[in-house]
Amino acid sequence: VVDLLREELHGSVTDPVAASMNFLNEIAGRYPDAISLAAGRPYEGFYRTEDVGRYLDVYTGYLRQQGIGEERVRRTVMQYGRTNGFIHDLVARMLAVDEGIHVPADAVAVTTGCQEAMVITLRGLFRPGDVLLAAAPCYVGITGAARILDIPVAPVPEGPDGLDPAEVARVAARVRATGARPRALYLVPDFANPTGSQLPVPRRHQLLRVARDEDLLILEDDPYGLFGVTPHPKLKALDTDQRVIYLGSFAKSCFPGPRVGFLVADQAVVDAAGRRTLLAHELSTVKSMLTVNTSAVAQAVIGGVLVESGCSLRAANRDKIAFYRRNLSGLLAALGRYLPAGVASWNVPAGGFFAVLSTPVRADVELLTTSAREYGVIWTPMSFFYPDGGGEHAIRLSCSSLTPDDLDEAVRRLAKLLTAMS
Amino acid sequence: VVDLLREELHGSVTDPVAASMNFLNEIAGRYPDAISLAAGRPYEGFYRTEDVGRYLDVYTGYLRQQGIGEERVRRTVMQYGRTNGFIHDLVARMLAVDEGIHVPADAVAVTTGCQEAMVITLRGLFRPGDVLLAAAPCYVGITGAARILDIPVAPVPEGPDGLDPAEVARVAARVRATGARPRALYLVPDFANPTGSQLPVPRRHQLLRVARDEDLLILEDDPYGLFGVTPHPKLKALDTDQRVIYLGSFAKSCFPGPRVGFLVADQAVVDAAGRRTLLAHELSTVKSMLTVNTSAVAQAVIGGVLVESGCSLRAANRDKIAFYRRNLSGLLAALGRYLPAGVASWNVPAGGFFAVLSTPVRADVELLTTSAREYGVIWTPMSFFYPDGGGEHAIRLSCSSLTPDDLDEAVRRLAKLLTAMS
Repeated sequence: VVDLLREELHGSVTDPVAASMNFLNEIAGRYPDAISLAAGRPYEGFYRTEDVGRYLDVYTGYLRQQGIGEERVRRTVMQYGRTNGFIHDLVARMLAVDEGIHVPADAVAVTTGCQEAMVITLRGLFRPGDVLLAAAPCYVGITGAARILDIPVAPVPEGPDGLDPAEVARVAARVRATGARPRALYLVPDFANPTGSQLPVPRRHQLLRVARDEDLLILEDDPYGLFGVTPHPKLKALDTDQRVIYLGSFAKSCFPGPRVGFLVADQAVVDAAGRRTLLAHELSTVKSMLTVNTSAVAQAVIGGVLVESGCSLRAANRDKIAFYRRNLSGLLAALGRYLPAGVASWNVPAGGFFAVLSTPVRADVELLTTSAREYGVIWTPMSFFYPDGGGEHAIRLSCSSLTPDDLDEAVRRLAKLLTAMS
Repeated sequence: VVDLLREELHGSVTDPVAASMNFLNEIAGRYPDAISLAAGRPYEGFYRTEDVGRYLDVYTGYLRQQGIGEERVRRTVMQYGRTNGFIHDLVARMLAVDEGIHVPADAVAVTTGCQEAMVITLRGLFRPGDVLLAAAPCYVGITGAARILDIPVAPVPEGPDGLDPAEVARVAARVRATGARPRALYLVPDFANPTGSQLPVPRRHQLLRVARDEDLLILEDDPYGLFGVTPHPKLKALDTDQRVIYLGSFAKSCFPGPRVGFLVADQAVVDAAGRRTLLAHELSTVKSMLTVNTSAVAQAVIGGVLVESGCSLRAANRDKIAFYRRNLSGLLAALGRYLPAGVASWNVPAGGFFAVLSTPVRADVELLTTSAREYGVIWTPMSFFYPDGGGEHAIRLSCSSLTPDDLDEAVRRLAKLLTAMS
């Protein structure tokens, strides 16, 4: 059977991005004392194990307060349920309160994390011959989802202010010239992973115009939007032409354990029976074939967070927002303090978990191994985020999961490495 | 945007099986007083809302007992985690205790329900030109998963004793003659959905021989195996040639709310770096692109059930097993009591949730609508389980979710309908 499977698995299951991420995990495992500027996971200091059960109780208590009988409460959290979930109304209220996004609850589909929301959206909307445009460098989750579904991705190079809408139009035209159809653009407008860039407001309006002119949908992914200095309006809040599908995550604003995300697809469509319905409803067919429905237990936990916060994660996250902003400032200050001129430069994001450092040194896996082994610090080569090559002299720095002291020490070690190699 | 999306969605997202299931849900919604012999969900009488939080506490308590510190306990249930899950060791122990399946824990991947296990397995193993063989009639989850991934399905007609291994070989040869490759066979050997059939032991051995001779993998799906009179050895327990990938669900043996399932893939493979590893590990790449990892909260709840039961769901389910056996006997007895000769015949499954009734009456959606509206009983046309046509004169009866009294009354109503229509 080894021989039977050997050739099969290569080049299909094995993916360069996955291989890169595996390599990072291995390095972290091999050098457990190295401080990680690679991990983009949220800081755990705000978490308490007992909160999980408490949120569950808050949500079931909320159902009972609504006059829902014990039998239905039990059914809600323990039985199979509605494909698009049961906390969609709370999510819709949260979007209205926090983001000024006003959509009917039925336009919200609760998903098994944002990753499933991406897979559902791509599978539901893309036909053979369709191409996904994506900011380059790009979050590995979307390129992974596209790969699983054999959807080609056309990179749109990002500048210091994020995507240039004119460049989006150029790439769309180039794709169209090959006979393919540019179906949608994926981007993280607020504090992108990996660059930390935030799309300026005028560009948001321009991008929506380009989407209309080029007949593109926009997949707006927003895991970090809360964690910034100046909130910009979401593309979905500016979307008068139903061009935007909004992809949401609770991993950072609540915690990752439940694995709950969502998509907002309020586009009016006509179903197979000729009835007018919402795109989110039609996409539920895809969801039913991937995971049937999102874990009811997990939804109840996130429901508890939403109920307890009055459906404002912006309010509930005040301390986390302050923490992440302090960490980002700390990262940028430490870079200034420890890195001599000529050794590196870096961008100055206005929020989020990431910044990018550029250096004349070749930031490859060999340097990373040396860094972990001899300097006790781990980071992510930016080349991991360019499936078609690029980023060879850049490093993604993540400041989300460390205490301020560890963050400072990590940058000191990184500076030592880069100074020695320069 | 309506026009933009209208044509796109049809024939791709909209799926005949999904349309059928939607129709069933609509009928159930429109006639809420009709008793449902259609719903295959588990009986809720065994559930208590407060058990969810309790199982969570049992699992975290178990971790602490193992000497795991509070910080790691918190990280386990609240943070991102290992792609293939963290209760894989408990699942492996359960498989050894309950089923005599002995595999290393690393061969178990915990998934977002069994549905995701199917998608992962198909995506990981199938190339263009590969065909999935599946018992016909067939569980809609696997045909849905194949559809999402554009994998063609070749039906293998089932007889009263389930699949005939010689027929599997014939269909495999026929597929091969078209230039395609029969890659794997999907089946539910114990109390299949929809037929309730159980594969006799000699046929299990024959099927494994056919798999070897025809170079097929076997996907053994086992959601109902616990609920029978005579447990037969699983194909995976007889699998000396690493031909079988076992697909498991906790929806019936625990409860559906967590949405936790698993796959067992202990096949030895060689990874991209040339290292020997297990297929489950290689499949984790696919999983990472679908859902990143299975809900940690949900895993902890199922972990609690496993810990509390000493990793024997067979022991933990004694009452449920008795209940479902009583319900199945009750269903079969009621059929005998209420249905006059010539109006219908039915099979006599030895366990599980389902039985199939055959009738000269055409059991289509029109009859179903009449049945719900005028006779107050809902059931599933068997034609829903034949994507390529068939089952026009058969009905799937589910006995899992009703009390014995409701079950009896439902059969009485069904008999009235069929007698009137004959």
